[in-house]
Amino acid sequence: MIGLVMDDQELIDRALYGIKGLKLDTNKKDDDGGFLNKDGKAGFLANIEEPFSPDGYYNEGPYYQRYAMYPFLIFAEGLHNVKPELKIFEYKEGVLLKSINALLNLSDADGDFFPLNDGQKGMSYYNDALVTAVDISYHFGTQDPGLLSIAKEQNKVLLDDSGLAVALGIKNGNEEPFNKKSINLSDGPKGTQGGVAILRQDDIELVFKYAAQGSSHGHYDKLSYSLYEKGEEILQDYGLARFVNIEQKGGGNYLKENKTWAKQTIAHNTVTQNETSHFNGKYEVGSQHHSVLNYFSSENEKVQVASAKEVNAYPGTEMLRTMAILKDEDFEKPYMLDIMKVTSDKANQYDFPYYFLGQVVETNFEYQTPKSLNPLGTKNGYQHLFVEGTAKAPSDNSQLSWLNKGKFYSLTSVTNTNDELLFTRIGANDPGFNLRREAALMLRRKNTKNTLFVSVIESHGSYSPVSESAVNSNSNIAALKVVLDTDAYTAIQITNINGNVKLFITANTETSKEKNIL
Amino acid sequence: MIGLVMDDQELIDRALYGIKGLKLDTNKKDDDGGFLNKDGKAGFLANIEEPFSPDGYYNEGPYYQRYAMYPFLIFAEGLHNVKPELKIFEYKEGVLLKSINALLNLSDADGDFFPLNDGQKGMSYYNDALVTAVDISYHFGTQDPGLLSIAKEQNKVLLDDSGLAVALGIKNGNEEPFNKKSINLSDGPKGTQGGVAILRQDDIELVFKYAAQGSSHGHYDKLSYSLYEKGEEILQDYGLARFVNIEQKGGGNYLKENKTWAKQTIAHNTVTQNETSHFNGKYEVGSQHHSVLNYFSSENEKVQVASAKEVNAYPGTEMLRTMAILKDEDFEKPYMLDIMKVTSDKANQYDFPYYFLGQVVETNFEYQTPKSLNPLGTKNGYQHLFVEGTAKAPSDNSQLSWLNKGKFYSLTSVTNTNDELLFTRIGANDPGFNLRREAALMLRRKNTKNTLFVSVIESHGSYSPVSESAVNSNSNIAALKVVLDTDAYTAIQITNINGNVKLFITANTETSKEKNIL
Repeated sequence: MIGLVMDDQELIDRALYGIKGLKLDTNKKDDDGGFLNKDGKAGFLANIEEPFSPDGYYNEGPYYQRYAMYPFLIFAEGLHNVKPELKIFEYKEGVLLKSINALLNLSDADGDFFPLNDGQKGMSYYNDALVTAVDISYHFGTQDPGLLSIAKEQNKVLLDDSGLAVALGIKNGNEEPFNKKSINLSDGPKGTQGGVAILRQDDIELVFKYAAQGSSHGHYDKLSYSLYEKGEEILQDYGLARFVNIEQKGGGNYLKENKTWAKQTIAHNTVTQNETSHFNGKYEVGSQHHSVLNYFSSENEKVQVASAKEVNAYPGTEMLRTMAILKDEDFEKPYMLDIMKVTSDKANQYDFPYYFLGQVVETNFEYQTPKSLNPLGTKNGYQHLFVEGTAKAPSDNSQLSWLNKGKFYSLTSVTNTNDELLFTRIGANDPGFNLRREAALMLRRKNTKNTLFVSVIESHGSYSPVSESAVNSNSNIAALKVVLDTDAYTAIQITNINGNVKLFITANTETSKEKNIL
Repeated sequence: MIGLVMDDQELIDRALYGIKGLKLDTNKKDDDGGFLNKDGKAGFLANIEEPFSPDGYYNEGPYYQRYAMYPFLIFAEGLHNVKPELKIFEYKEGVLLKSINALLNLSDADGDFFPLNDGQKGMSYYNDALVTAVDISYHFGTQDPGLLSIAKEQNKVLLDDSGLAVALGIKNGNEEPFNKKSINLSDGPKGTQGGVAILRQDDIELVFKYAAQGSSHGHYDKLSYSLYEKGEEILQDYGLARFVNIEQKGGGNYLKENKTWAKQTIAHNTVTQNETSHFNGKYEVGSQHHSVLNYFSSENEKVQVASAKEVNAYPGTEMLRTMAILKDEDFEKPYMLDIMKVTSDKANQYDFPYYFLGQVVETNFEYQTPKSLNPLGTKNGYQHLFVEGTAKAPSDNSQLSWLNKGKFYSLTSVTNTNDELLFTRIGANDPGFNLRREAALMLRRKNTKNTLFVSVIESHGSYSPVSESAVNSNSNIAALKVVLDTDAYTAIQITNINGNVKLFITANTETSKEKNIL
């Protein structure tokens, strides 16, 4: 910045391209354990190249993008004003402005960013960095009237040209709603390292992560997801284990549970194989890989699907996950269908947790609750889970209903009688009370090579403590069944309580011609 | 009602006075375990006499008063219209209308009723029964303009004269805020059976219960309290263990944990002696007794105090609790001072829990956390508490700070090195996941006859996940000290971190001349 003020080309060049002739050790790591200078590139332009995908997804996720946006945009604004010939806002096909749109789309109905990787819950587009981002995006972009509605909610503008443009836009009544739609955001400098898909239908939002590692702030959460309704979590992503800037909690820094719990695979809504995390929890290995999109389809808004594959997290094992939000007149609200197809060259134990929030209402299986609570394991995050209940799964379907913040939810999973079900609660081996005491239902399938995990999650009905009326408190699913599962296709049959039957078919390969029929 | 419609005096008399000549067994109990007809009285008038105190407090608490108000008031309105000579709204010095005012005052800043006894959280003055109550109170009472503001929030009126009066009042812009103030509500038909005191200062509300048993819906919670800030719980009263009308949870009825947990003394913010509940958890015994007011003082709004005594809960032991909300320019917000003076004829174990909500931020004592969680005991509610941490208390003061919903709170207690501290969590022996997994810090004092429990609870500062700034996250208390404790007086010295010293003196006897000086 000082280079721009002083019109000092040497300083400006240093900012743009790094210090000339300086060679940093490409294996050096930063404080957070990430590579300091892996590819030997430096300077502002390299910093735009590397972390942003062509869609504007920032490789560490929205929480850190919010943090990074302010210096990126303020310096870019300075460059734009002093060195317009650089066309900084057009650099890499306008990725800086695209990234603001991506970031806004990575927020829930309340404007809170999805806590992918190390993300603290509650960070939102009300943060000052987003005031900067929204104003600059409006002014230097296409004057998107949707941005004005966010600026109006922010109730703040920058004290510069861009803020003035936004203020005038609002004054002139130009704002329109910022409509967040289903979106597929590629990851990686060239957009070829997986991505994040968000499926939206009515009040339901599904966030499906099939991205690259996410640098030092990444979690070992290949093909994980979280599910929201109107800004409330249905199935949660835990986020980070840190109380940012609360000095009594480890100086406000990352707590050791961030590594021992929050980053581990078992802390996420995805498959853990043999009680080890993806890539054995090794950053150096995870950083070399990414998941791959199978297909993304949101054209038919009643049948929105994202499907992706991971082949590196567990060598010898392939995981193909297909997640859909289905809108069906036989159901009160859109519901989620989840098909995880696991193919392995050897028998494994697969653990598949569902981090629901709220109070258990009902199960269709009998479970035992222990007198004493013991940790589920000794490492890889398992040491932080207490076992609160155990069950043998019923044949056909296992079902759990719960109540959270006045809404009922049901999970229906295809199970067999060899499956185990575990109720777990976070909080074991937590000597500083750093972790939230939250629950999961875990489906455990032992000694299995190839298998399919199929589940539906419904939001249904409501409960009001004022009227004390419980409306539609039961699942609408009578049966969930796998009717076909080949290398090429998987077909799931969903029968509702009135006996209406729907078939969902997904293509597992050659998905340029993918089909799905409901 | 049909008697009024048909003008049938016999039916009306039966409604007013009960069935002539019918003698019910005075020892019979109802479904909830309460006495069906303890005093042999019957009919509407007896039903006004018995449960309502002259201040309008309903003996089962606000949750059941809300339930009872609708039939009481609709029948009263009918009587008023058809039999105006009965002057039903003036009966017992206008207790029906007074009770509505009492009920509204038994709600927090959001209008939610304090969950005293068997009360389901979230029930509020938005319930339809309260629309009836507010409209009738306005119309047949003194047209209190404060009621109009509540009616406006309710956004509904009765379709009768009273609803019309309210609607016109609002239309004419007559409404004024309904200012809830500190209030002391006596319990018992003649107002001589203890009561409930509510101290309010700025956003802080303290609910101190020194009432009678509360019929079959009563809890064994003599001298217990709960603390609120702006409608959020700081220290909670658990409420009932029931999911009203959610049929999957025990048919929507009382769950067995209501008796084994929610009613027990250890579930409340008061003293449990020798791990047994007040009155040994026996309803027949508890029903014969009540606590007694020592004094209530809210004239000086900077020093508001309620003090009450219980001598029957544990024969041979007297408990005198003095609770104050103090507003002091050396503190950011009003804070709570709690002085529990226990006098016994023998050595006992006293357990004193603090049911805080939220995440532990800091303690000034070292604690150990067990690998496995075990129940604290086997009965009287202790079987439902897991021990999550144990500590030897420091000399002088033990301090815990926690964070909940963006605010910091600190508890500072006078302790000695023989005291034990336990972190507990609700949820042991809960085979149906009926209980909420919430925490407490418990102060345990063993082998002690006479003793004093002295604590301060402060609300301070804030945390925003959007700005990530933690403001005033530390307690303002440097030292809390008992400087005098005699039969007649107890004096507590509070030193803040700047060294400013305050003295609080309370009279333990002869309180017609009570003094307290800050």
